Amino acid sequence: MTNPCIALLTDFGTTDIYAGVLRAVIAELAPGATTIDLTHAVPPGDIRNGAFQLWRSAHFFPAGTIFLCVVDPGVGTARRAIAVRFGAFTFVGPDNGLITYLIVGEQHPPAFELAAAEYRLERVSPTFHGRDIFAPAAAHLARGVSIKSMGPIIQDPVRIPLPRLSMAEEAKIEGEIVFIDGFGNLVTSIGRVEVAQGSLQLLPWLPGCQGATIPAQGWKLALPGGRTVRFGRTYEDVGRGEPLALVGSDGLIELAVHGGRADQALGLAVGQHVVFMPRE
Amino acid sequence: MTNPCIALLTDFGTTDIYAGVLRAVIAELAPGATTIDLTHAVPPGDIRNGAFQLWRSAHFFPAGTIFLCVVDPGVGTARRAIAVRFGAFTFVGPDNGLITYLIVGEQHPPAFELAAAEYRLERVSPTFHGRDIFAPAAAHLARGVSIKSMGPIIQDPVRIPLPRLSMAEEAKIEGEIVFIDGFGNLVTSIGRVEVAQGSLQLLPWLPGCQGATIPAQGWKLALPGGRTVRFGRTYEDVGRGEPLALVGSDGLIELAVHGGRADQALGLAVGQHVVFMPRE
Amino acid sequence: MTNPCIALLTDFGTTDIYAGVLRAVIAELAPGATTIDLTHAVPPGDIRNGAFQLWRSAHFFPAGTIFLCVVDPGVGTARRAIAVRFGAFTFVGPDNGLITYLIVGEQHPPAFELAAAEYRLERVSPTFHGRDIFAPAAAHLARGVSIKSMGPIIQDPVRIPLPRLSMAEEAKIEGEIVFIDGFGNLVTSIGRVEVAQGSLQLLPWLPGCQGATIPAQGWKLALPGGRTVRFGRTYEDVGRGEPLALVGSDGLIELAVHGGRADQALGLAVGQHVVFMPRE
Repeated sequence: MTNPCIALLTDFGTTDIYAGVLRAVIAELAPGATTIDLTHAVPPGDIRNGAFQLWRSAHFFPAGTIFLCVVDPGVGTARRAIAVRFGAFTFVGPDNGLITYLIVGEQHPPAFELAAAEYRLERVSPTFHGRDIFAPAAAHLARGVSIKSMGPIIQDPVRIPLPRLSMAEEAKIEGEIVFIDGFGNLVTSIGRVEVAQGSLQLLPWLPGCQGATIPAQGWKLALPGGRTVRFGRTYEDVGRGEPLALVGSDGLIELAVHGGRADQALGLAVGQHVVFMPRE
Repeated sequence: MTNPCIALLTDFGTTDIYAGVLRAVIAELAPGATTIDLTHAVPPGDIRNGAFQLWRSAHFFPAGTIFLCVVDPGVGTARRAIAVRFGAFTFVGPDNGLITYLIVGEQHPPAFELAAAEYRLERVSPTFHGRDIFAPAAAHLARGVSIKSMGPIIQDPVRIPLPRLSMAEEAKIEGEIVFIDGFGNLVTSIGRVEVAQGSLQLLPWLPGCQGATIPAQGWKLALPGGRTVRFGRTYEDVGRGEPLALVGSDGLIELAVHGGRADQALGLAVGQHVVFMPRE
Repeated sequence: MTNPCIALLTDFGTTDIYAGVLRAVIAELAPGATTIDLTHAVPPGDIRNGAFQLWRSAHFFPAGTIFLCVVDPGVGTARRAIAVRFGAFTFVGPDNGLITYLIVGEQHPPAFELAAAEYRLERVSPTFHGRDIFAPAAAHLARGVSIKSMGPIIQDPVRIPLPRLSMAEEAKIEGEIVFIDGFGNLVTSIGRVEVAQGSLQLLPWLPGCQGATIPAQGWKLALPGGRTVRFGRTYEDVGRGEPLALVGSDGLIELAVHGGRADQALGLAVGQHVVFMPRE
């Protein structure tokens, strides 16, 4: 493996030099590696948000990419630092569940503790493991060091709870809001959905939701408080300023407002309950 | 042409992973290409703003650069996806006028519809053509695929109206505010201006304003409501907190406040009328 | 020296294309160079902030890195443009003190004025020296041009005052707040501190504070108004929402709030006086 990408996902924001220092450490230790900023705007300490953003992006990167992920509210405590292999990719970061969605269904993914002193910076600050432990590990992996050299094997990387997603009764699917993007779109746990040949096919993206094939017309999303939003195909299916549910770019059903912000128009938050169901 | 730059201009913001995913797709399909972020902070859906920012930046890039531009309020509708060659550069994006300022005066620039399925991702989401159509096209162009392979030729790429700019009478030039930058400077359509040998030379940057050579001193910019702002050379020509008009870094006349924000001090918006004229 | 990194530190923000245009100019003039964004969010014109962020980051970059720094409230005035060598690194930017912390103790660091026309863009705007003077100089240095070719030698690069830092009496160290980061942590001038073998060792990071070795327990930071904050080791040493002083990732003592923002909780500003002293 030569010169893979290192993708960065952090909650450092774009104001400080913290993300820049990660790139500096990588440039020092793995000069040929390409770093790609995925996002530095995960809300501070929001592991669930970071886990979802990592899940929705990872499969678009080249094989061999190393994901350097620093959303780390427990920095300086006893939480472990880990590297985990998933498919052709590697995760490097704190052991707090950020990797959860990418190892669903894998009981014992290859995971290792970042314990080897030679793959850390000489001095490890208790408050900036991104710079002193995670970036050096990612850089050494990028230049070909074996993941097994990082430290002892781990059997049980920490996982966060999966979002609600279940078939309540025939053709009714219960889910929840899992993410709000910067445009105010509300992504739900319902999908992974594909429209093909006049039918809507629900694919299992997480365990707990079996696949199903259902007619592609006449559906709605029921929200808390009795409101419903019709299911359409593109923003143009409704007038400007009106809400609709549609299959988003992740393959999950999301709530949007044509030319506006669904988060403000609908007043929903992450974790709230939604039901996908026939319109009449 | 080997390994040109791909410059990114979008309205994705820096909060979400959308810009990062464009970079991922490029890294996957054109591993040697260099991506350069121009801006991801075009106001959502503001084509006119994006077109101006593209115009003011493009000529500083190396020959061969591909501009991947995603300000795309019509995503998922019938609007076309296009690649357009201008000079030594290539534009890739939606056919909604983003390219306008860079092809002024060219009746039929070489333009092609991004129709070829082999240069798109396998699945095309109706809401994220940046990832599924534009980034793959830019990457394939970067690795040497001919622009003619992208799809059928287009005779009439969409153009947005040009800003007002006319010589009202001798030595009076009428223009408008075309852009407000992050420092609050108000860029006008008046210019392209150069100061040389004691004279101010107005160059035609857009059709409709002929060039002119005028004395370099004793000018002002008249604003709506009867106010005027004197024309100077640098911020230091006025006291702190005072406004002035000066030739900005694009060669256009702009309104600034020394050590402050002209947008707040003057209360002007894009599209408002201004006149460059003698001081007395 | 082949293909060193060029690190960017500016107050351009991430909204405009200004930082992107610096990258464009570098890509044009030094195609093989790697650019690394350190930060573009220095508060507009805040030289002291930029100088501190540069100091805290520079030593993590590879030898040979060129720091292209544009915090330039005096652009267009008589202030000089300079390149300064410090250790294995080079600074390029305005001569206004941004380099101060990196040349403390060096009376005459190798410094040169950026005067040579052949290492500037053809046209120099009075308002965008970043694009027209600094980025070209950095790019030419990156491709191997000697710093001595840039222009005449300078004996006295501008320096800003160093922050307060003095040993008031036995085991009392007076300092000040020097920086507030994006998480709201308040970095002080007190340190550079290392904890080793049960003792806290104060190292001289700036002249004026001699090193000292003091017991590692039972210390506090006294704030203006009579308040004190206990000194701990990690955020977990106090309850959620409670403040503490700890050795930050720069080796300086900083004020933080566990799971919160110290700037809001403590209401302190840059320049305010603090004293590190025994707890009872």
